[in-house]
Amino acid sequence: MIHQTAIISSNAKIGHNVTIGAFCIIHDNVELADNCVVGSYSELGLITPLANVNQLIIGEGSIIRSHSVIYNGSIIGEGFSTGHHVTVRENSLIGKNVQLGSRGDIQGDCCIGDYTKMHADVHVGKFSNIGSYVWLFPEVLLTNDPTPPSENLQGVTIGDFAVLAAKVLVLPGVKIQKDAVIAAASVVKTDVPEGKLFSGNPGKVVCNASILRCADNPKIKAYPWRKRFHRGYSEDDIQQWLSESK
Amino acid sequence: MIHQTAIISSNAKIGHNVTIGAFCIIHDNVELADNCVVGSYSELGLITPLANVNQLIIGEGSIIRSHSVIYNGSIIGEGFSTGHHVTVRENSLIGKNVQLGSRGDIQGDCCIGDYTKMHADVHVGKFSNIGSYVWLFPEVLLTNDPTPPSENLQGVTIGDFAVLAAKVLVLPGVKIQKDAVIAAASVVKTDVPEGKLFSGNPGKVVCNASILRCADNPKIKAYPWRKRFHRGYSEDDIQQWLSESK
Amino acid sequence: MIHQTAIISSNAKIGHNVTIGAFCIIHDNVELADNCVVGSYSELGLITPLANVNQLIIGEGSIIRSHSVIYNGSIIGEGFSTGHHVTVRENSLIGKNVQLGSRGDIQGDCCIGDYTKMHADVHVGKFSNIGSYVWLFPEVLLTNDPTPPSENLQGVTIGDFAVLAAKVLVLPGVKIQKDAVIAAASVVKTDVPEGKLFSGNPGKVVCNASILRCADNPKIKAYPWRKRFHRGYSEDDIQQWLSESK
Repeated sequence: MIHQTAIISSNAKIGHNVTIGAFCIIHDNVELADNCVVGSYSELGLITPLANVNQLIIGEGSIIRSHSVIYNGSIIGEGFSTGHHVTVRENSLIGKNVQLGSRGDIQGDCCIGDYTKMHADVHVGKFSNIGSYVWLFPEVLLTNDPTPPSENLQGVTIGDFAVLAAKVLVLPGVKIQKDAVIAAASVVKTDVPEGKLFSGNPGKVVCNASILRCADNPKIKAYPWRKRFHRGYSEDDIQQWLSESK
Repeated sequence: MIHQTAIISSNAKIGHNVTIGAFCIIHDNVELADNCVVGSYSELGLITPLANVNQLIIGEGSIIRSHSVIYNGSIIGEGFSTGHHVTVRENSLIGKNVQLGSRGDIQGDCCIGDYTKMHADVHVGKFSNIGSYVWLFPEVLLTNDPTPPSENLQGVTIGDFAVLAAKVLVLPGVKIQKDAVIAAASVVKTDVPEGKLFSGNPGKVVCNASILRCADNPKIKAYPWRKRFHRGYSEDDIQQWLSESK
Repeated sequence: MIHQTAIISSNAKIGHNVTIGAFCIIHDNVELADNCVVGSYSELGLITPLANVNQLIIGEGSIIRSHSVIYNGSIIGEGFSTGHHVTVRENSLIGKNVQLGSRGDIQGDCCIGDYTKMHADVHVGKFSNIGSYVWLFPEVLLTNDPTPPSENLQGVTIGDFAVLAAKVLVLPGVKIQKDAVIAAASVVKTDVPEGKLFSGNPGKVVCNASILRCADNPKIKAYPWRKRFHRGYSEDDIQQWLSESK
């Protein structure tokens, strides 16, 4: 299952039933748990002096697609899945079942919860703090420097179940609370309270997100989305979500 | 013409005079017609359970630049040309002489006509339907989910000869008609009628696109562009365009 | 220091103490000066008929990170540093100590001064003219075609020490003067005078940039940034900047 052209350090720990594609490079101190798949041309465990620990741990059943680059110094949970050409820098803690789209970029020192899903071209700046079950759609950009360039980086914070639609820009230090929904192309300069819809550039809180209805069935509330969208989540999660009062 | 380091499946059909660069991977059921060139580090024919047909067909004289990834399940016409680091997913029908810029991303189940040209970083969401002779400039993003996340994806439709300038965002299900021109950085939430100029965020139809003049010669109408810009088109097309009444 | 899987032309000139990673391709007429490091899967010196000179020169101590592509025809100064998956096209003159972030794209025929730094996903259109000590933050896009598509490309000009924050779009032919600051997500359609803050879409000059204060210390003027931010610059530069009158 390990392609003969792959270059694997003898100091890497490769689990059972791991597939490593052609022309991959796995450096020292990488731990790939059982049942992982690494696409061709991927390089895992690049060394950087910025890494707090000289180790890269990737959990069971993860799928790294081709041409991806992951540095040493991060701990990534089971069921991690990436598109192609992604980069993940050092010192990030990534929960289980997290998904990155193609060309996704985690710039380092980030914290990402469980089941958070990013589409293509999402750029997560250093020191971002993203909760669980968050959705980041294409070309979302989380920044961190209020007066660039500076040494005073302030990461963005995003609460559980929040949704950031395509091309949203979040300014440094902004806090987006649980269940908030940010409309496409918005520029978020101020904190967004729980469950609110935020829209515009310059943007503002518009209303409760729970007012929005599904485009194909106006009888169904669109948000919180966990009441209606369940693909890829555990039965336990779904049961809990359905049992929550509205 | 096939580099010795390339890995070519014995079930791939490689035409005459095809060049395949170093470290390429060509999987089963890929058909590369005559005179194609595949840049280094490209992987063609990746298998996905989402593909409707277990085949990838790429037409004569196509040029795939390096580090590109094309899945099984698409049919691509002659004269296809890509930049570097592109991704094309399954079930897309792509006409002849289509051009993708570097990091272009066709997300799958798309239909693209002939001679449509995209610059760098264009992201075409699933179920997009793009006509012929369309221009998509850098960082154009075509979305598909009106209440993300959902299962109700509604692709964008773009008519022939339309122009979408840099950083344009098109919202799900929007129809942009033939000869429309969308100004840079616009957010398109509503349909755009034939031949109109649309601009802004929130944007609106501003005027007929035919009012615009060339920056370097105000005597020449800028749109429809086919009356004045002919590089890379066939003599037949050009003659027809010039003979159309204004 | 040259990996055994790398493919190096016998017509390339490789300096002393150069490191070339696995699966790299170095074509004819590439000159890599002493102490350069080239990451895996990078291809340097691609031939194009658009190149004015059949040569690629990369200065001493440069670091090209993995999966990058640099064409023939450019001259790049010492201390060049790139992220992953970058592309640099032909006929560009790039000064010393220039930095490109991951997926950075220099489209060709550009001129870039010394110590200019770009974050991830910066797209520099053909014929851009960028000064020294400029900062371009993520997803900045410099365009060049006032009536796309056309043959009348007009590159953007950016003066020394200017700062373009995240997701800024600059329209063709615009001139941004020295020390100007462009706020995040702005669309720049008009020239920006020296030292001004420009913001919005449609944007305008708002005030002198020198009014802005540091977020973590309101006693310190944020701009010109060279009075307060010195990481990575030479002692001579810093001394000169500190000695300038305010």
